[in-house]
Amino acid sequence: MVLCSGGLDSCVTLALAMESHEPAVLHATYGQRTAARERRAFEEIADHFGIPPARRRVLELSFLGALGGSALTDPSIPVPRTAPGGGIPVTYVPFRNAHLLAAAVSWAELLVAPAVFIGAVEEDGSGYPDCRESFLRAFERAACEGTSPRFTPRIEAPLVHRTKAEIVRLGIELGAPLHLTWSCYEAGDEACGACESCRLRLAGFRAAGVEDPIRYAT
Amino acid sequence: MVLCSGGLDSCVTLALAMESHEPAVLHATYGQRTAARERRAFEEIADHFGIPPARRRVLELSFLGALGGSALTDPSIPVPRTAPGGGIPVTYVPFRNAHLLAAAVSWAELLVAPAVFIGAVEEDGSGYPDCRESFLRAFERAACEGTSPRFTPRIEAPLVHRTKAEIVRLGIELGAPLHLTWSCYEAGDEACGACESCRLRLAGFRAAGVEDPIRYAT
Repeated sequence: MVLCSGGLDSCVTLALAMESHEPAVLHATYGQRTAARERRAFEEIADHFGIPPARRRVLELSFLGALGGSALTDPSIPVPRTAPGGGIPVTYVPFRNAHLLAAAVSWAELLVAPAVFIGAVEEDGSGYPDCRESFLRAFERAACEGTSPRFTPRIEAPLVHRTKAEIVRLGIELGAPLHLTWSCYEAGDEACGACESCRLRLAGFRAAGVEDPIRYAT
Repeated sequence: MVLCSGGLDSCVTLALAMESHEPAVLHATYGQRTAARERRAFEEIADHFGIPPARRRVLELSFLGALGGSALTDPSIPVPRTAPGGGIPVTYVPFRNAHLLAAAVSWAELLVAPAVFIGAVEEDGSGYPDCRESFLRAFERAACEGTSPRFTPRIEAPLVHRTKAEIVRLGIELGAPLHLTWSCYEAGDEACGACESCRLRLAGFRAAGVEDPIRYAT
C-alpha cells in the first residue's frame, strides 16, 4: 500500500516500493486548492507504473477541508510566497497524515498488505509534525494495536531522513516519472515557483545538479 | 471533544464529560446500515445536553463504507443474530476508531481542546481491537507526536474497563438520556433485540436490574 499525493516525494516512494512489491495506491483529496491537479498527477503516475484500477482508490476527506485552519484548504488564508521560517507553517493541515495512514491501514488490513509506504520527509521538509519519524513510529504501534492480532502492518517512510537533493537523485536513478509530479500549493496550469513547496523542490533539483522537468510560471 | 455515535456508551461518556467540560461533539457516518437512525440519536442527545450547532460536526467516512468487509457496511454480509463468539466479529470495521480519533484530534487541535473522549469498551465489549486500551494509549502517543509541540491531547476512555451493567448504572446516576440512544446494528424503527449489540445492551440492563427504556421488535 503506497500513499501517493502526486508530488515528488510520493512518486519516488512509489518507485521504490515497485522495486519489491505490487502495490495498491491510495490518493487523498481534502478540499485543498490543488485537488484536481494533484488527482491528475496521481492518475498519470499510477498509469505510468501500470497499476490497475482495482488497486487504486481515492479517499475523500471533506471533513479536513471543512475544518479549514490551513492555507491549503482555507481560501481566506493566502499561501506564503516566502521560504518557510521556523515553527509550523500556515500550510499545515492539522494531523492530516493520521487520516491518510488510517485509511491506508484499513484498506491494507482487508488486502492483508504487509506495509504502508508514505513519502514523508522530516529533515529537509516543511516542518510538519505529522511528517516526523517519531509520529510515524507511534502510528505504526497504534496500527498494530488497533487491528487484528494477525495483522502487524509496517509504516515505511524510506525518504524520511533524506534531503530533497537525495530524493531527486534517487528518483532519477529509479526512472521515476518526475515530469508527471505536481508539488505546487497554488492552483494553476503551471507551478508557481514561489510557494514553500516549489522552493523546496527547486532547491532540491538545484542541489542535485539536475533540471526540474516540470514547467514553472516564473 | 467527545466522539458520539448515538449509542449507549458514547451517551454515558458525553454525560461524564459534561460534568467538567463544555465539549464539542463529533459524530461519524460511514455508510453503516443504521447511519440515519444513529444520526438522529446523536442530534437528539446533543439537543438534550444543549450543545450548540457550532460545537457539533458530522464526519463523512464514505471511504470506510466503500471498502466494505464488515457486516455493518456491506449489505451482502448479514448481521449475526447470535451472541459474539471468540475472535473478531464480522461487524468489525477495519481500524474504524483510528479514523474517528484522527478527525477528533484534527478538530481538537484547531479548538485547542485538551482531550478527546471516546466511549470505547474493552472488557465487556464486542472484541474489536480498536476498542482496546493499548490501542487508545498508542494513538494518544501518535496524536502528541503528530501535532504541534504545544498541543498534547489526552485520549480519555472512561468506560474502557467498565462492564455494560456498570455503564447503565452510571448513565442513570448521571441522568444521561438513555431513552434517546440507539445501539442496534440493524436498520429499523425498533431495535431488533437479537444482534450482538442489542444482546450486549440488554444483558447490561438486566445485570443492572433496570428496564431498557427503548423499544424492541422482539
